[in-house]
This record gives sequence, structure tokens and C-alpha cells, in this order.
Amino acid sequence: MAGGVGSRLWPRSRAASPKQLLHIMGEGTMIQNTVARLQPMIPPDRVLIVTNASQIDGFRDQIPSIPQENLVAEPFGRNTAPCIGLAATILLERDPDAMMVVLPADHWIENVHEFQNRLKLACTIAEERKGLVTLGITPNRPETGYGYIQWSEKKDGIEKHYDEGVRVVRTFAEKPDLPTAERFLRSGDFLWNSGMFIWRADIILKEFEEHLPDLHEQICKISNTYGDDSYPNILEKTYRRITPISIDYGVMEKAKNVYVLQCDFGWSDVGSWDETYRLSRKDNEMNFLLGDVVTIETNNSFIRSDGRLIAAIGLEDVIIIDSPDALLVCKRGESQQVQKVVDYLRRKKITSLL
Amino acid sequence: MAGGVGSRLWPRSRAASPKQLLHIMGEGTMIQNTVARLQPMIPPDRVLIVTNASQIDGFRDQIPSIPQENLVAEPFGRNTAPCIGLAATILLERDPDAMMVVLPADHWIENVHEFQNRLKLACTIAEERKGLVTLGITPNRPETGYGYIQWSEKKDGIEKHYDEGVRVVRTFAEKPDLPTAERFLRSGDFLWNSGMFIWRADIILKEFEEHLPDLHEQICKISNTYGDDSYPNILEKTYRRITPISIDYGVMEKAKNVYVLQCDFGWSDVGSWDETYRLSRKDNEMNFLLGDVVTIETNNSFIRSDGRLIAAIGLEDVIIIDSPDALLVCKRGESQQVQKVVDYLRRKKITSLL
Repeated sequence: MAGGVGSRLWPRSRAASPKQLLHIMGEGTMIQNTVARLQPMIPPDRVLIVTNASQIDGFRDQIPSIPQENLVAEPFGRNTAPCIGLAATILLERDPDAMMVVLPADHWIENVHEFQNRLKLACTIAEERKGLVTLGITPNRPETGYGYIQWSEKKDGIEKHYDEGVRVVRTFAEKPDLPTAERFLRSGDFLWNSGMFIWRADIILKEFEEHLPDLHEQICKISNTYGDDSYPNILEKTYRRITPISIDYGVMEKAKNVYVLQCDFGWSDVGSWDETYRLSRKDNEMNFLLGDVVTIETNNSFIRSDGRLIAAIGLEDVIIIDSPDALLVCKRGESQQVQKVVDYLRRKKITSLL
Repeated sequence: MAGGVGSRLWPRSRAASPKQLLHIMGEGTMIQNTVARLQPMIPPDRVLIVTNASQIDGFRDQIPSIPQENLVAEPFGRNTAPCIGLAATILLERDPDAMMVVLPADHWIENVHEFQNRLKLACTIAEERKGLVTLGITPNRPETGYGYIQWSEKKDGIEKHYDEGVRVVRTFAEKPDLPTAERFLRSGDFLWNSGMFIWRADIILKEFEEHLPDLHEQICKISNTYGDDSYPNILEKTYRRITPISIDYGVMEKAKNVYVLQCDFGWSDVGSWDETYRLSRKDNEMNFLLGDVVTIETNNSFIRSDGRLIAAIGLEDVIIIDSPDALLVCKRGESQQVQKVVDYLRRKKITSLL
């Protein structure tokens, strides 16, 4: 899933150069890192990228190892459920037994070996139980920026995997306020919802049929024309009418056969500049400096130049993100408010900066 | 006097576009404001601008009312004494009784009417006493960024002007440390040294002859060729050998017949971004915002865009000065340290940003 904009990473992330195509953390761009950490388990020719039509060229350039036919364009963003449904029909046509691993293109994972191990176990569970499996992250702080998953102590059918951290899902919880997040953390049976899912393609489509019958019908209409001349036209017409809905809300919260794997491989959705600073390797002044930066008496700050020199004097806990046509200067801890700037630009129709 | 760079106003002030040619405070550029506030007392054709050769074109463009022959180029900056000596010889050649008003090109003055009144009185004193007159500013805070002038209670020859705030100078003091500045403020007989001087051209040249005989000789050598073909060559050769020295150190501290006028017309040398913020008209959040700026929960800050959008979130007491190729982000109260950035650029020979 690679169709988002990542607007909280403005001014670097834009519609035309979204977060997943940028160098934010690690060696490559976020999508390059995402594909690389699947190797050799899932080779590039079995990676399907679903993204916005306007971003397809960027992915082609950045990951030439992925076959052209694996780049799937959505004409409009319609949240995660349509994206996943479309991908499932494509995989199912290629292989009626297809196992499907759904991953966002813009996450950071520290321990890749452990990540792959959990993915393999998830595939085993999805196959054995013919169910829906998701990865839950053991929380280490009362984060209000993530959704949560509560697991139950039921062991029905997963007895032999219980010690491996496989759990039956009890409920999904939206992003909580701080007191609720603190309660979740203390309770010990809540995990962060990573947005990563594992299931057989045929199984998830059956769930769509049951819980999202309209969307299922729309997706089948599209997939029936896959490879035909009429495909682009049908895709666009049908997508235009699709109501946006997330996979969590549309399917996961309603389905019965849902499992979660407790994971502890170091994970982040890199959802804000504060988070980026938190994940980065700081210098002796606890600064994270990128590019052409001069500091004087400056500490605990994240400064990212983009070609121009940045001189910082006497700063503490400040985030500075430069770009050719817009600059962000933000107190650390306030970077969620970047969304307000993006909202302002949308209201004012300053599209060149979006 | 218009030859400086104003490096503490980096990154806006540069060798190629120095402070005096920029819009920093008020309606026009600093030199335009300086010339405008002399009208109608000193018409443009009687204003002589002495500046660095590299800046001459800028002045010609900005103040077309000043005759070409009144723009005097120094090949190198040699501090204030050579600049003033050169100007004095030029004025003396035009009028043996010339009264000379020496003004820096980059100051801010609030009450222009009062300023002109003090200048007129200064001219009267300079003529009556055949002495050196300077304007001293009544201090309102223990500023460490200015030099000070201590006056004496002697009234020799100025009895009838004593009530007008004319004083005999006792001593000049360099920029003090804070305890010293506080003592100066309490004592009541110290004024800020504004760097503005009034005297007859013939008198100041006599003082040069007495206290700076080498410099006097060098200046006469130049002025003897004024208008000749050999002038540019002699000017350059002679200037190259001139030792830089200020008028304060070279003449004022040594001369005997020195007077100071107590002045209270609202004055600043606009020497730093902190000072610029201090002088500016703030909005309800005590921000001073220029250009394309969006603020969220930001107070007591000075943000100056230069075409690009600046988004500020959660900031308090921050100065942000943008330019096409360099950005300054500085805690308020620390803008004197901008000099360190400029020094760094000089050391690293990053001349494009100087």
C-alpha cells in the first residue's frame, strides 16, 4: 500500500513527492527500504505496489526490479479497503492459493530478521486457521498516534502457537486519548495496530463479500475487465463511486476469525517529524543534523537542510525542515500540528505547496 | 559614511547587498531613509556618500537625486577616520567654510524634527567654538553594544547653550561590560556614542594634521590629484597603505575642543536582529511577521520570509530570517552571535554567502 501523501511530513512530503518516495530514515527511500527488508523472502516479482496513478512513475524509477505489471494504479485514493480488495483480486487471478502480505510502504523496522520470522509465522497461522492475521506491536509508551488491538486469552485452535505470541483478537480500538492510552499500556493486553495484515487472497475476498458487499461487487466489476481494453475506463468510473473505507473499520472489526501476533522488532510508522527525530541517531549535543547546517549553542534539535545553509543559534528542542519553496520551524513535541498547516494550504488552495 | 557590510544582519546583509541598501526598518532602504530625514535641511546635491567601490552602483540606483560626483568610492574599507578625512578634503575644495555633518548610513531615528533641531544646534556650536561636536544619546538601558561618552560640568564658552543640553566632553568609553554599563546608566553623565559628528571641514583636517599626521599626509596626496587622470591610481595605491583607524580612537579621544549634545530623539544603530525586533511594531501575539508566514501557537517572534512560505509552530522568542541561499534561526537575545556564523563562513571561505 503506497498511495498516501504523508502530509504530516510536510514540507518534504508532497502529493508529487510523497513520503514513501523520500529518504526519511535509513539508506534508501521508504519504499526501497520496504521492498529491501522483504528479501529474500518475497522477491520483487511477487511484490505488488498499489498507489495513486500520479505516483506510478516515481515507483518505476526507484524500484526497477519490480515488473511493470506489478505496479497497480488507483485513480483516486479511497482508503485501505478498496486498495486491498483490488490487490486481492489480482493475486487470486495469478494463484488461487495466493498468500497475501499487506504492508504499508512507509514504515520503519529495526530488526529485519525478527520481522521476517514473524511474517513467516503469520503466514502459517493464516493458512492453518484460514483466518485474518495482523501484526501487533508491543507498546513501550502511551502513544496516542496509533490505533490499538486488544487480545483475548482464548486459545481456540492456536494452542500450539500460543507461546510464540499468537493471540485471538478481542477488539480493535481507535487512536486513544492520553489517559486511555496509559490504561492500555498498563493493562498488558493491548498492542499497537501496525496496519500490517496477512491472509489468503480468497479468504479476505470472502470477508469483503460478507461485510462490504457493495465494495466487493465494485471490485469484482473492475477485476473482470483486468487485461481488457475497457479496464482503465471501468476502473476510473467504478473508483469514482467507491465510498472510502479503511480495512480496519470495514473488515477487521467485524470479522470473526482474527488473530494478532505480538511483535517486538522495533517499529514505527514514521508519522511525524518528532517521530523521525526520536528514531534517529543523535550527536553529542543530541542534535540530528542533515545537510549544510551550522549550529551555535543548539541542542536537542532536528535540522534538515535542503541545499541552502541553515545557521542555528541558541536553539533548544526545535525542528527545522527546509525545502526549496517552503520552510517548517516547529517546537519539538508539536509536529502533529503540521497537519494544520497542510489543512490551511488546502483551504487556501495553495496547491503548489501541497 | 556608507561603506560597511552590517554582518550581524546576515543572512540578509551581504558584501554585495549591505545593510544600508536593504529595507530593514521604515519605508525605504536605510540609505534612502538617511537621506530623506535630512530634507529640506541638507538637499541631496550637498550630500556626499563615501562607500566601497563595489557598492557605488547600488547607491546610484537607490538615490538618483544625488549627483554622480557626490558618490565617493573607497577602494578598501579602512575604518571611519580615512573615510571622514577624504570627505573633508573634498568639501573643503568646494567651500573653504564648509560645515560638515558626518552620519552613518544605517541608523534609525524616530523623531526627525527633533533630530534636525539638534543638528542645527550642533552646527551653531561647531561654528562658534571652532570645535568638534558629536551627538550623544540619553541612554534608557545598560546597553553593552554601544560606546559611551562622559560629559563634564565645565561650561567654558558654552554657558548660553548649557540649558540646551550642550556639554564639554570629558572622555570616550569603549563598549562596556554589563556591570560597567549599569554604572554608566546610574551615573547620569554618560551618553551613547551615536557616531554622528558635526564640524567645519578645515577644523577636522587640522585635527588630523595634529593627531594623525601620517594619515593626513596620505589624504592630502589623494586630494591633490582629485579630478586628475592619476586620481584612481593614486587613490588605490595610497589607500592600500593606509592603516585602518576609527575617528573616535584616532581623533575624538585626543582632541581638546570636543562637545557633545544630549539627544533624545529615539535612535538605534539597528545593529542586530534583536534590535530590529525591539524597534518594530508587533502584532497581538507580539510577533513581527514579514512576507509569507503562517504561525500556529507562536509568540514573541520575528519571522521574515523572502518569497518562500514559512510555517512556524509552537515557537516562543525565536528569530527566523530567510534568504534565497541561507537561513538563520536564532533564539531571541542571541542575535549578536550571528557574527560568529559570518566569521565561520569567512574562515571556510564560503564567499558566496558573505
